[in-house]
Amino acid sequence: MSGVVTLTTDFGYGDPWVSIMKGVMLSIRPGLAIVDVTHDIPPRDIMRGALCLGFLGDSFPEGTVHVAVVDPGVGTNREAIIVRTARYFYVGPNNGIFSMVASGIREMVKIENTEYLSDSISATFHGRDIFAHVAAHLTQTPMEKFGPPLEKLARLDIPEPSLKPKGAVSGEIIYFDRFGNAFTNITRKMLLNAHGKGGGRVEIDSGGRRIAKLSYYYQSAREGELGAIINGFGHLELFTPNGDAREAFGLKTGDPVKIRFFPGRGR
Amino acid sequence: MSGVVTLTTDFGYGDPWVSIMKGVMLSIRPGLAIVDVTHDIPPRDIMRGALCLGFLGDSFPEGTVHVAVVDPGVGTNREAIIVRTARYFYVGPNNGIFSMVASGIREMVKIENTEYLSDSISATFHGRDIFAHVAAHLTQTPMEKFGPPLEKLARLDIPEPSLKPKGAVSGEIIYFDRFGNAFTNITRKMLLNAHGKGGGRVEIDSGGRRIAKLSYYYQSAREGELGAIINGFGHLELFTPNGDAREAFGLKTGDPVKIRFFPGRGR
Amino acid sequence: MSGVVTLTTDFGYGDPWVSIMKGVMLSIRPGLAIVDVTHDIPPRDIMRGALCLGFLGDSFPEGTVHVAVVDPGVGTNREAIIVRTARYFYVGPNNGIFSMVASGIREMVKIENTEYLSDSISATFHGRDIFAHVAAHLTQTPMEKFGPPLEKLARLDIPEPSLKPKGAVSGEIIYFDRFGNAFTNITRKMLLNAHGKGGGRVEIDSGGRRIAKLSYYYQSAREGELGAIINGFGHLELFTPNGDAREAFGLKTGDPVKIRFFPGRGR
Repeated sequence: MSGVVTLTTDFGYGDPWVSIMKGVMLSIRPGLAIVDVTHDIPPRDIMRGALCLGFLGDSFPEGTVHVAVVDPGVGTNREAIIVRTARYFYVGPNNGIFSMVASGIREMVKIENTEYLSDSISATFHGRDIFAHVAAHLTQTPMEKFGPPLEKLARLDIPEPSLKPKGAVSGEIIYFDRFGNAFTNITRKMLLNAHGKGGGRVEIDSGGRRIAKLSYYYQSAREGELGAIINGFGHLELFTPNGDAREAFGLKTGDPVKIRFFPGRGR
Repeated sequence: MSGVVTLTTDFGYGDPWVSIMKGVMLSIRPGLAIVDVTHDIPPRDIMRGALCLGFLGDSFPEGTVHVAVVDPGVGTNREAIIVRTARYFYVGPNNGIFSMVASGIREMVKIENTEYLSDSISATFHGRDIFAHVAAHLTQTPMEKFGPPLEKLARLDIPEPSLKPKGAVSGEIIYFDRFGNAFTNITRKMLLNAHGKGGGRVEIDSGGRRIAKLSYYYQSAREGELGAIINGFGHLELFTPNGDAREAFGLKTGDPVKIRFFPGRGR
Repeated sequence: MSGVVTLTTDFGYGDPWVSIMKGVMLSIRPGLAIVDVTHDIPPRDIMRGALCLGFLGDSFPEGTVHVAVVDPGVGTNREAIIVRTARYFYVGPNNGIFSMVASGIREMVKIENTEYLSDSISATFHGRDIFAHVAAHLTQTPMEKFGPPLEKLARLDIPEPSLKPKGAVSGEIIYFDRFGNAFTNITRKMLLNAHGKGGGRVEIDSGGRRIAKLSYYYQSAREGELGAIINGFGHLELFTPNGDAREAFGLKTGDPVKIRFFPGRGR
């Protein structure tokens, strides 16, 4: 265990709820390093929470405990769970929030052992009463102690790109960041699979707009135009230099993006 | 002392002021764990700051120092104070910000000993020059050293629910969270006192709307309808499942809420 | 080295990018204390980032590493640099972001030694791949190891006040905080130089409005009126008691502010 816990919630920054979770954790395990991923997940937007967790990649220390509380079903009989992958632990509700960490799962348990929970469990704040308690204990307690194995992890229907039409990759916009950059679900790996490492020209189409080439960096596209780049997460990203592509081009989540390959020179 | 300090301010997240307070504290006491409660208290909204401090409950380690800087009177002769309760220390201006921690106060001092303050005190930033210095020193210095006893703690006029009309509890909305959930000042304890633990039906009225029963959890009310629940802080809360009750029903702080009890079965 | 790192970015609070930088740093140097200055710098607003860094003053422990990522040129050949002043280290792009720390610079290097960087450097996220890595290593590695000396620090054209017309100081508004208070570039030091420590009356003009005297604290001006004060950073600041001066008086960055001195009594 690394002694690092991260928090991803839809609690916002204006209420004391997140700090209360931290107080609980520091009461159980003084010295814990707690990192906020974000608390600005739109209310109940499990998909956005899942994507944010997916972006964390290998950047945190091995054994980090990632807590996610985007939990519209709080108080119902939806399960509270711990998931272990090769690198990390995840703690939260079994509602799809861990859909993007699904590859490489080694172990999953249902949280049932009340020894590691608050003495009283409220109907509205499991972030405090369950998840904060479990996360802090999990940094010093084997996960098997928290409950029996979980059988089935809930998964969101994450849109997958396809290799159609022939010679192309078709995907869609799945995420916008603060700058209005549009992350697609098309990855570098897919492009290499479809296209190979050889030369050739590419064309990217999205919403009636055509992008004639991949940019090497943001500033290599022209201001006022839509550009495309392989971003720091290995995803095809649409952007506009020094501007907000989402706003300027009216992009939205789910917009289709198609990339086609042509023989010859170019990138 | 726990080595944990929390910060509650109206400084926002766009300016470096909060970080400067942290820099001061880490200069005095390296290794301190500093937790942000919120910095999004609306400018000068002492009442909201007081409520946020009240919500912290027992969630932090014993000896935690809670610093609150919502301080429209900065630079005037309003007192700077330390308050000790059975569990915590509080540091801030004597302007009512500690109204909700007033029960269980053990000791109060006026901050006057300049030995524990910045060498120069500005007219506009006591968060840095006074409160951050005092908080960090307080984690390793007895509170008596900071100044003489405080005689009178300033208190806001917090609205109190009443047990009228007979057979009912009348209160009001005091706080909205990010989800648009409406916290009332009516507590579970008052309901038990008024109603007893026995069965019976309840009706909740607010703004011409009637809620026929208490929900056990958010999803047990119907979408599009106003529900009521005893929340994780033991308060009666109005909500709407998967939505924003404040917006959907035009609720506002101060709106009256009345709960009545009827014999018979139900919750 | 102090074991304290601060972060100033335009990444916002809704994306996981900042947390990823923290994960990288905690992987390299467990136990590091990481302080957020702000992540709400408007996208690509290098000037605001530079001003925020300037406000940090001496409030952090000696040896603190300040990381700044407001970096529209990410991926281009703009340099990545480390700057050392008498008190602190600064890590970021060489694009003017360190303009306000320019006094007292002792040493500057270009980051070139790949030993201290991520194994692969993306085109869009140098905050993770370069700056977080360097900052964490810099808390335990001499700065000379990161690369050769930097020859020229990029500087923004920071507006400077003048001592004209005779008997006056002319400056402008450079920064607004969350409260709508307007920081000018006129400092106490300039006022003392122009005016001396002796008595005398002052008049402040800004946008057709005249302020007849300096306030000792916010509440000593009248509600609804524009006031002026020497703030906690030694700058002349325009404000309105219990209100938002920016909004109420339509102030904006670059608005001229002139302060004139008259013999006689007053402040």
